[in-house]
Amino acid sequence: MTNTATSHQDRLTRMGDVLRDADVDLLLVAPSADLRYLIGYGTRPSERPALLAVMPAAPPLMLLPALEAPRLANLDIVEVVPYGETEDPIARLAESLLGLPVASRVAISDQSWAGVLLRLQQHFPAATFTPASTLVRNLRMRKDAIEIALLTDAGAKADRAFGEFVQLRFSGRTERELARELQRLLDSQGLETAEWGPSVASGPNSSSPHHITGNREIHEGDAVILDFGGQIDTYQADMTRTVHVGTPDHEFVQVYNIVRRAQQAGVEAARIGSIAESVDRATRAIIDEAGYGDYFIHRTGHGVGLDVHEEPYMVQGNALPLDPGMVFSVEPGIYLPGKFGVRVEDIVMTTEDEPVRLNNATRDLVIVH
Amino acid sequence: MTNTATSHQDRLTRMGDVLRDADVDLLLVAPSADLRYLIGYGTRPSERPALLAVMPAAPPLMLLPALEAPRLANLDIVEVVPYGETEDPIARLAESLLGLPVASRVAISDQSWAGVLLRLQQHFPAATFTPASTLVRNLRMRKDAIEIALLTDAGAKADRAFGEFVQLRFSGRTERELARELQRLLDSQGLETAEWGPSVASGPNSSSPHHITGNREIHEGDAVILDFGGQIDTYQADMTRTVHVGTPDHEFVQVYNIVRRAQQAGVEAARIGSIAESVDRATRAIIDEAGYGDYFIHRTGHGVGLDVHEEPYMVQGNALPLDPGMVFSVEPGIYLPGKFGVRVEDIVMTTEDEPVRLNNATRDLVIVH
Repeated sequence: MTNTATSHQDRLTRMGDVLRDADVDLLLVAPSADLRYLIGYGTRPSERPALLAVMPAAPPLMLLPALEAPRLANLDIVEVVPYGETEDPIARLAESLLGLPVASRVAISDQSWAGVLLRLQQHFPAATFTPASTLVRNLRMRKDAIEIALLTDAGAKADRAFGEFVQLRFSGRTERELARELQRLLDSQGLETAEWGPSVASGPNSSSPHHITGNREIHEGDAVILDFGGQIDTYQADMTRTVHVGTPDHEFVQVYNIVRRAQQAGVEAARIGSIAESVDRATRAIIDEAGYGDYFIHRTGHGVGLDVHEEPYMVQGNALPLDPGMVFSVEPGIYLPGKFGVRVEDIVMTTEDEPVRLNNATRDLVIVH
Repeated sequence: MTNTATSHQDRLTRMGDVLRDADVDLLLVAPSADLRYLIGYGTRPSERPALLAVMPAAPPLMLLPALEAPRLANLDIVEVVPYGETEDPIARLAESLLGLPVASRVAISDQSWAGVLLRLQQHFPAATFTPASTLVRNLRMRKDAIEIALLTDAGAKADRAFGEFVQLRFSGRTERELARELQRLLDSQGLETAEWGPSVASGPNSSSPHHITGNREIHEGDAVILDFGGQIDTYQADMTRTVHVGTPDHEFVQVYNIVRRAQQAGVEAARIGSIAESVDRATRAIIDEAGYGDYFIHRTGHGVGLDVHEEPYMVQGNALPLDPGMVFSVEPGIYLPGKFGVRVEDIVMTTEDEPVRLNNATRDLVIVH
């Protein structure tokens, strides 16, 4: 890869440059993947606000409950601004931002809590607030060498768990039992548990792309969609395979092959110089042409990194140009209500040359028992 | 208990009444404990917004990605407003809120994403947005009979896991190993895994109240703070005990007894008619008097329910009157930097009569090996 590793210091510096170019005075980042990306600090949002403040000219600050401050004691790239249990955190932050213009332009991370934004708006009534996503995505979308190594490792581990999983008996077991088994195999590969567990959608349930794994018992003749992942150092794996219990009928095989061809076309379209929408257009063209366009009811894919869904999105209307080192899913599907669904998902990386799949488990139809 | 069970329909009706009394035209609730509380729908926030809209006069609506709509097919208490993958969700919501005044007052759940609030503010420029917490807390703070049963069950299971855990060997094992063992015992009690795992802080680490469980090896002479829980049907357990590896010295025993007395005083202060602050005052008085006031560096407690931290907070400045059926932690602590810390935490429920502890594992000092 041409992308080299970037330190958190590099990222903060580049973030400052992005803010300057966009004429933004202040970026506020709450606990989220954005925060982990910029300074490597992973924490959950809570009723005690925590906010990283990045400015184009001044050094970065981190507003933090005093209780949490010891965790950042070794982090010398930000100055910690602690607040006590009975202090107003937003007032404390404002004191530390003395140089900020009254009518400043403030970008706030999209996953910050609305409660925090409302308090900021009250405290800075002349400021204009905008979502930070379009600024931060410019950094996060292009993965560096270390990020790519982690995503590649996570993908390979998910592949291996799938290979072991399809050896197991499906028939007579519930979706939930199988999801637990798959989780166990992901764990034993060394994938850390993600916030979401494996999704197992069987028989008619597979025709709902966001089915919640339940107690349905799986039988001969079922299609089963398996959507699963895990994380390495909080970099996410996310893959989907559709398997069949026993011999499939003609219609299933036909639909499976259409989805597989569509997925291949989507991967091949993931070329630099193209736009994100073109990946969606490529998968949709195959499915439309085969007469199943009305049954492909979701976008083709989403970026993957520290978040399992992040920019760039492979969706109609997204004119974002694809650059090298972008990593996203290509996951077309066909869902026939009440009958079955098929989805095949790999994580794909753009390069100067051919797109590279980070999932390489077989895409041939796997028959399970 | 006097509090009877409330259906989601009851809760929505009461929520409408609260909005009318507060002169609020619209409440918007994103995926969060607020949403689970009001309609029983548990889902994670994502880049595809989902918003429950409650109004004082009109029936409630649920804006939802079309992909998720099948999940709510059996929920007849809200009308689902689905949007497709290429539609603007906020525009779709606005279309469905035709009767809304232009200069409406809109309350939004505190845990909604800032990105969603900014889009709402852009779409409804004449509306005033306020945090929903003070409205929703009026319902959520007073637990009904079913909620109390679940919280009681969760507390008892955490107690039993603690009882088994202190039989294990501590000496020579790392914090992380012990945290894993404790998680296993919580699992085997039937507590579902919470978003947070057990925290194990040993030796000098125990003097940081928000220590992150790490690789420190535990030895004879260490104090060990164990803060742990889990959930039953998403109702949370949360308890803390401090144990000692081998015979403690005089100072540790003295500090332990002060914290224990402070905790007892806090529980006894949890009486209806008092205010939340008075629970904090009661624990702090004991610790101040013993000369350790500077080392009790956090509030006394937080509400517990569908969220592990929720209203009411037992903190200086909180004049909220305590009502029957409120459930919160009482968890004073003393932290001597570089030496050790002690914290004892039980979940406590207010009643018409005496306060009731939902944790009843021994508060006597437990010596482990």
